[in-house]
Amino acid sequence: MNFASDNAAPVAQPILDAIVRADAGYALGYGADDWTKGVERRLSDVFEREVAAFLVPTGTAANALALAHVAPPWGVVFCHAESHIAIDECGAPEFFGGGLKLAGLPGGAGKIAPDTLKSALAFYGGHSPHQMLAAALSITQATEAGTIYRAEEIAALCAMAHARSLNVHMDGARFANALVRLNATPAQLTWQAGIDALSFGATKGGAMAAEAVVIFDPARAASFAERRKRGGHLLSKHRFLAAQFAAYLDGDLWLDLARHANIMADRLARELAATDLPPLWPVEANLVFVALPRALDAKLKAAGASYYVRSSEALCLPADTVLARLVTSFATQNEDIERFVNLCK
Amino acid sequence: MNFASDNAAPVAQPILDAIVRADAGYALGYGADDWTKGVERRLSDVFEREVAAFLVPTGTAANALALAHVAPPWGVVFCHAESHIAIDECGAPEFFGGGLKLAGLPGGAGKIAPDTLKSALAFYGGHSPHQMLAAALSITQATEAGTIYRAEEIAALCAMAHARSLNVHMDGARFANALVRLNATPAQLTWQAGIDALSFGATKGGAMAAEAVVIFDPARAASFAERRKRGGHLLSKHRFLAAQFAAYLDGDLWLDLARHANIMADRLARELAATDLPPLWPVEANLVFVALPRALDAKLKAAGASYYVRSSEALCLPADTVLARLVTSFATQNEDIERFVNLCK
Amino acid sequence: MNFASDNAAPVAQPILDAIVRADAGYALGYGADDWTKGVERRLSDVFEREVAAFLVPTGTAANALALAHVAPPWGVVFCHAESHIAIDECGAPEFFGGGLKLAGLPGGAGKIAPDTLKSALAFYGGHSPHQMLAAALSITQATEAGTIYRAEEIAALCAMAHARSLNVHMDGARFANALVRLNATPAQLTWQAGIDALSFGATKGGAMAAEAVVIFDPARAASFAERRKRGGHLLSKHRFLAAQFAAYLDGDLWLDLARHANIMADRLARELAATDLPPLWPVEANLVFVALPRALDAKLKAAGASYYVRSSEALCLPADTVLARLVTSFATQNEDIERFVNLCK
Amino acid sequence: MNFASDNAAPVAQPILDAIVRADAGYALGYGADDWTKGVERRLSDVFEREVAAFLVPTGTAANALALAHVAPPWGVVFCHAESHIAIDECGAPEFFGGGLKLAGLPGGAGKIAPDTLKSALAFYGGHSPHQMLAAALSITQATEAGTIYRAEEIAALCAMAHARSLNVHMDGARFANALVRLNATPAQLTWQAGIDALSFGATKGGAMAAEAVVIFDPARAASFAERRKRGGHLLSKHRFLAAQFAAYLDGDLWLDLARHANIMADRLARELAATDLPPLWPVEANLVFVALPRALDAKLKAAGASYYVRSSEALCLPADTVLARLVTSFATQNEDIERFVNLCK
Repeated sequence: MNFASDNAAPVAQPILDAIVRADAGYALGYGADDWTKGVERRLSDVFEREVAAFLVPTGTAANALALAHVAPPWGVVFCHAESHIAIDECGAPEFFGGGLKLAGLPGGAGKIAPDTLKSALAFYGGHSPHQMLAAALSITQATEAGTIYRAEEIAALCAMAHARSLNVHMDGARFANALVRLNATPAQLTWQAGIDALSFGATKGGAMAAEAVVIFDPARAASFAERRKRGGHLLSKHRFLAAQFAAYLDGDLWLDLARHANIMADRLARELAATDLPPLWPVEANLVFVALPRALDAKLKAAGASYYVRSSEALCLPADTVLARLVTSFATQNEDIERFVNLCK
Repeated sequence: MNFASDNAAPVAQPILDAIVRADAGYALGYGADDWTKGVERRLSDVFEREVAAFLVPTGTAANALALAHVAPPWGVVFCHAESHIAIDECGAPEFFGGGLKLAGLPGGAGKIAPDTLKSALAFYGGHSPHQMLAAALSITQATEAGTIYRAEEIAALCAMAHARSLNVHMDGARFANALVRLNATPAQLTWQAGIDALSFGATKGGAMAAEAVVIFDPARAASFAERRKRGGHLLSKHRFLAAQFAAYLDGDLWLDLARHANIMADRLARELAATDLPPLWPVEANLVFVALPRALDAKLKAAGASYYVRSSEALCLPADTVLARLVTSFATQNEDIERFVNLCK
Repeated sequence: MNFASDNAAPVAQPILDAIVRADAGYALGYGADDWTKGVERRLSDVFEREVAAFLVPTGTAANALALAHVAPPWGVVFCHAESHIAIDECGAPEFFGGGLKLAGLPGGAGKIAPDTLKSALAFYGGHSPHQMLAAALSITQATEAGTIYRAEEIAALCAMAHARSLNVHMDGARFANALVRLNATPAQLTWQAGIDALSFGATKGGAMAAEAVVIFDPARAASFAERRKRGGHLLSKHRFLAAQFAAYLDGDLWLDLARHANIMADRLARELAATDLPPLWPVEANLVFVALPRALDAKLKAAGASYYVRSSEALCLPADTVLARLVTSFATQNEDIERFVNLCK
Repeated sequence: MNFASDNAAPVAQPILDAIVRADAGYALGYGADDWTKGVERRLSDVFEREVAAFLVPTGTAANALALAHVAPPWGVVFCHAESHIAIDECGAPEFFGGGLKLAGLPGGAGKIAPDTLKSALAFYGGHSPHQMLAAALSITQATEAGTIYRAEEIAALCAMAHARSLNVHMDGARFANALVRLNATPAQLTWQAGIDALSFGATKGGAMAAEAVVIFDPARAASFAERRKRGGHLLSKHRFLAAQFAAYLDGDLWLDLARHANIMADRLARELAATDLPPLWPVEANLVFVALPRALDAKLKAAGASYYVRSSEALCLPADTVLARLVTSFATQNEDIERFVNLCK
């Protein structure tokens, strides 16, 4: 009954197999190998356009490097107040960004509403050089609340941002979960809607440690290689990073794994709702948030269930309950759900 | 005939096996797993004292984080002018260190002589706050020239540094190669000689992507966890990093792998010397530098040999030769050497 | 009728005279002169304890250097959401602080309430190393809203901060205005209440360009000299900076100038209130905020009145009004006020 | 007999007068005043082209901001090994530049020879992204050794730098001294020779604290205002900074003051040479370097002479001598020189 995080899961077998297969003979280091070239080509195929892509081992690295690339040190990056970059990366975006500011915006169910962005843009209205420069918007897809931006929602935010010359970044640690839910193409949810740079996660989806920063206009990728290297994020035996990402994409494995995780979340939510524990936010990806009575929380923990209890300012929970975040993954089994739900009955 | 780099080699089989074995069931992320705890304990055993250890995926990350930890942003770090941190990490130490300065010192065979350090310390003699503060010394063991500092040489440099309140860091990307050559214990070549922090490399030695920053006085490790996290170097599925390092240490695998690499380098050097291609620097680790006639260089390349040609200000090579750096590794085979040497005859 | 800012005022005559007097003969640069030594001594007298003091030319420099000194790059500094450091310094604290985060807290009348700080501290509750470290609190005295923290209010916030090992900084750009209003000693409003570091402003009070960073425990001032120098804030002809600050303190000039500014603000507020334009916040320093009908705003501007119109999320103003910020200074004359008020009638 | 530094001198009377005159009435802060607009216009006249100019209070600020503007954080800035930016600014360029590297080049008499730059460029030959990027060249005019680059020397260095896409910065703390010596126009020694950005010093020349960063192509000045502000270098009562610079330029005061300083240096050098103390480097600006016997050094100090003793790796001085740096300024009097020289006889 492990619902702690999708990164508590192991590595998906086809990805592990690819690592083992890559362990043969010599290969030039630092990305000058064939696996890397193959992945780069493959990513252009996935997004139906030429893109620049840079592999890194962690999502924090992907986000921080991408944000530093699209905003100057005197820039403000608008993001959700409870987004990963704002509260879970120990200031990595500020560090890589040379002191940029993350302006956390409120928003129900983990999403930023257009009017909220509009107000924020109005506040950063050009009182230069005293005020920092409104420079970028970062949205998370799927969000930390397990919800999803529709293509038209993304397009609306991007249009508003671009009208003020902001770049738009997407934290796609759970990009696959959003894609399969919406039955959309990668292109539709990113550059076709206006996204400039994507942190494309594979780790939570089933890889060991593999993320890609995708810059949709290759002409704007200049110096990203230097950024990555001086951040210590250019792996020497790079083929093993590339092999992971290649296997993740091969035969749409990434979409299959995400689909499974979503189905598990749907089932978990449905069955919990049937026991009077309805989800607090729409379950659109692989996260289910419920208000657990404290006694039940204790019982579940005692029975070996693993999950995190979070706080949220946006929610007003009943007394004597805790906000439980239940995360499913490619590895979640029906039995885990059954056992968990039975304990809740 | 691949002598390009020890990171062109694959992953040693026992380490790959350990990764595969670790891929079972759930484990808490970010280092809260049992593999990580085991490695941390194990490193204290290896160094015969309680140490603080932090795993990261790259040597550049290890070096940059360690240097930022032992020197303030207004500090000068003395290092060899041709050291990896000075010329091959795209400014990572300066970036992580908030603008610190690397002062590259000259020195034959990749080593810093005590008198050279003495002069440098005299130059940074306290013209505060105009001059930057002499803050740290970083030495490389084994050096980029394939040579090795003896324990007493390290102790002499450390004593001089500590007398001026500098911290001393060791870049141990090839620490194992030095150890087995000197038949010394890890403790003797580090903290017992005065080293304060070590970048303990496993990647070049046979791991996939695993390095450890070892801080010998655990009381001085405060905030290192935050540094690593904001650098994007805290892996989520951390067990796979720990599993690599554990396998590297298990049964002295690391020393066996390094011994093999050293033996291959010895043989390569000996046989090249027999063909009138003597090594330019003492061969003490797994690197052999020779002056190759250009015609021979072309012939070797044409025959498929892979190695890098370097430049060095410290050497005055004969005309029509190039400085070839030949790196052996745990994976180097006798046949590679035979074929290479035969081509040189 | 210039109410734009206290920095639109000229230099107070005694301070200008001191500059002229200092322009005689040679003096060692960079603070090794007698003027500087005198000011440093004098500041210890003013605060009734030995302090470490560092002069700089701007308030932004003072704030940014002080915050960088009391919080690590992975630290969070709590401040009022509308404070100068948060919205008017183009990210200087983040820059000097190596990427630290300013967490803007809400609060009526420019002040942070203890409960607000308590919630913020609870949110930053130690989810290390993912979350940034709660590291410092910065309060503004007098506030941007023209209000003042009482000694006991400061003490309450400091106690709460210190209990969590936070340092407390005070932005005292208008410190004198607060002092004379409360009839308190400098010691009472700072270190005796728990303040660790103060940006002690003189520029807004009548100097040309002179601020002091005062660190109340001299043992904690180590390396501040380096910080100032590498920030480019150590003036070479330092005597002219010191002469300004000395003249500001001499014979309690600073308190006299602030008293005048406060009296002018009181009168302005009283007379505007009598014309049905009551102040929106208590007038406790030299700032008066009123909701001006747009027509009156236009009329005043046309008549030559100079002041800024601000926005505030904390206020809900009547339709067709603007939030006018009226700042008085040592230079404000009764006639300015009369003319302005007459136009408002 | 004060030859310690040109910043040990007071403020030139016309500049002090201008400060006093500016102290009348109100003026908008932060450079929105008429004095500032006037200086900006005036600087375009001085350089015979439209320029972007930004006033700051210190030379360190000017240099660090300018270098950060012309080189990325992963860039190398070539400079003389004994230049002010390399050894006397406590890492300000590295700090403002986000971790850029200063590569100190050797060179006789404080100057960088074209061949030296050529070698340095060859070393930074594009081993990207491992090596930092050759990004800028900074030369000092007049140099720290009191020598001067001729227009054609500047042009040669700039051509070499531009051919590799480097920007060229000139540290002109003593720009006026060079100009009057060469009888050249400001344009000839800067942009017409290829300089991209200039730190135009007035402080050493006679101002209180006033420097200008001049960017010759205004289209490349975007965001410099933000850089200055977040560095804490935008003065609020900006008119007093502008008034200094305006007075410095008015009626060619700056050239007259520099001419006087140069004449004093010439006389000092000539008369010392006549007492067997010849200058060690050509005396082309306002600095004279001589090897003083230690006994004479002691005698001079005892008699009240003030000057600094320096070290230089480029010189091999006779035993029992010290390298004395004697700096003249606009304030140096003939009597000072007479007395000093008499003591040397």
